Amino acid sequence: MAKEPPVRIKPERLREVVRDIFAAAGTPAEDARTVAHALVWANLRGIDSHGVSRVPRYLELFDSGESKPAATMRVSRPRPGIVLVEADGAPGPVALSRAMREAVTAAQETGIAWAGVKGTVHTGAIGYYTSLAVQAGMIGVGLVAGIPNMAYHGGRGVGVATSPISIAIPAERHPALVLDMATAVMALARFQQYRAQNRTLPEGAGMTAEGEPTTDPSRAAIPLPLGGAKGAGLSLAFELLTSGLMANPIVTEFHKKTPEGRRHRQNAAMVAIDIEAFIDLAAFHRIVDETLDTIKALPRLPDTEEILFPGERGYRALAARERDGIPVAAETWNSLKKAGEKYGLSISA
Amino acid sequence: MAKEPPVRIKPERLREVVRDIFAAAGTPAEDARTVAHALVWANLRGIDSHGVSRVPRYLELFDSGESKPAATMRVSRPRPGIVLVEADGAPGPVALSRAMREAVTAAQETGIAWAGVKGTVHTGAIGYYTSLAVQAGMIGVGLVAGIPNMAYHGGRGVGVATSPISIAIPAERHPALVLDMATAVMALARFQQYRAQNRTLPEGAGMTAEGEPTTDPSRAAIPLPLGGAKGAGLSLAFELLTSGLMANPIVTEFHKKTPEGRRHRQNAAMVAIDIEAFIDLAAFHRIVDETLDTIKALPRLPDTEEILFPGERGYRALAARERDGIPVAAETWNSLKKAGEKYGLSISA
Repeated sequence: MAKEPPVRIKPERLREVVRDIFAAAGTPAEDARTVAHALVWANLRGIDSHGVSRVPRYLELFDSGESKPAATMRVSRPRPGIVLVEADGAPGPVALSRAMREAVTAAQETGIAWAGVKGTVHTGAIGYYTSLAVQAGMIGVGLVAGIPNMAYHGGRGVGVATSPISIAIPAERHPALVLDMATAVMALARFQQYRAQNRTLPEGAGMTAEGEPTTDPSRAAIPLPLGGAKGAGLSLAFELLTSGLMANPIVTEFHKKTPEGRRHRQNAAMVAIDIEAFIDLAAFHRIVDETLDTIKALPRLPDTEEILFPGERGYRALAARERDGIPVAAETWNSLKKAGEKYGLSISA
Repeated sequence: MAKEPPVRIKPERLREVVRDIFAAAGTPAEDARTVAHALVWANLRGIDSHGVSRVPRYLELFDSGESKPAATMRVSRPRPGIVLVEADGAPGPVALSRAMREAVTAAQETGIAWAGVKGTVHTGAIGYYTSLAVQAGMIGVGLVAGIPNMAYHGGRGVGVATSPISIAIPAERHPALVLDMATAVMALARFQQYRAQNRTLPEGAGMTAEGEPTTDPSRAAIPLPLGGAKGAGLSLAFELLTSGLMANPIVTEFHKKTPEGRRHRQNAAMVAIDIEAFIDLAAFHRIVDETLDTIKALPRLPDTEEILFPGERGYRALAARERDGIPVAAETWNSLKKAGEKYGLSISA
């Protein structure tokens, strides 16, 4: 049977579809728009694994009670530079967008602000939230901790999470630098790509479900930490900076092997840094642009066509997909239609 | 000729020696004590490459004018959470200790504070400065950018620096978590260890001086970034967060190939986070201790005797060396004696 081709959807239409599904599931209008923006942003940037394909999973989490479509988030500001967001199970895009907006507002006064987020689900592509800071003329830094799915250095089996970090820095002539990286050598989805391409994994990237290191992509089930002790240490530090400070430990509870400890949840930190506290914004943009010029002009290895900075590839995908529409996998599009049907929505491109 | 054995020196005596040398070179008494503390801390923690062996290099930088023994640092606080330290070429330990102390003071009010440092030299082991925040009951985060010495992902030859990050988090039953990692797979000094042990380097760790990737440790001259694009992206982001915000770009100037652009200098950022803005300190310590218990109790790979968290090995070295003294390589001890002679000091153990 031939595989169905992807459906090409205009970004604005895809946002409407996602917004309508979340609204029908009980999400307040403004929050439904926020979720749609965050997920479609991931598709626009070419990160399809973190885009609208996640919609059915959010709906499952609503049904199971692990997430709430209309959560009652509590936001407080115990110090001028600290914001606490108790997310009450709100979807990641709702909780983290709010957190970064609050951090930006506080940083206008203090120069830097940290918004801790407690108890959200599926944050998606966290470059979206750090990019919100860039839109406000600031630098954004984001950390997320979730349920363990990666080995700890020297450990056998799952130990900590592939907890990502994102750093977004504005430029003027160049698009913003948007680094968004997991603390694993490579994510689980990449194992499948290696398998599909009949390639063996590099040493130190994967472990079997039984905890044996392997280079066979069909046996690899657990990602290994980036650089061994380094990636493991970063992941552990991110757990303490998010789950620890927000009094919602995930790693400890997970390894107690109780149903509660294994329930899906995530904690996060969103940090905004106001560039103008340090330097005139135009002067900063000039330094960033010149630094990126320098990087791009470096001599290249023979097999490297072009040197890219973090976020450059994503920016190009965005430019193309805003113009030509987003290619949505047929399977994903059908799952959105099915989700719509559940709420009596008739979804078309 | 037999190699001279190391000289075992009590930490307090080693601090006096370093302090006296710096004082004799014109460093104010308090600053000379600070340098001695930072360098001997690195030796105590087993990081001998960043300890007192660096003393002659500071003295060279004083002689060349690249560093000043009695710099006039200017400290300002343009916003409640932002401190700017213009280091005027002060040695790293002087500038970065001051920066972290200022950040801690500001964070007592705002909950988080960022101290940017412009124009220092040789910062040494940056875990020392983040540990200062821990001593004040806070979390410390530190970033440093320096002269490029690592390849950028896809680039041929030197592109960016092995810019390190440190994160220090206090515990109660356990020693503090102190992560201190470069953004390279391994530092230059490790290539020499591989060569001495007649081992080949792993793929993706080193490049020759001519820019050819190599696994031959005797030909490797340039470290490669951790995880390729990830380590390169982190290093680039750290350059912009330190050198960019402090208006002292290093990467761009270096690649202009002017003598000024190649002059040794470093910029940094020291961040303090006041735990009590989020959570009761005792409750936080409990969460950290339990999380570290969990990590240490994970099932182990067959060749792993014990699972360690970041900083644990350093803490054990410190306990042993505080008790038994610090084994100082004969070559290093002789270089300290020679440095002392230059200023008419007679140095003995």
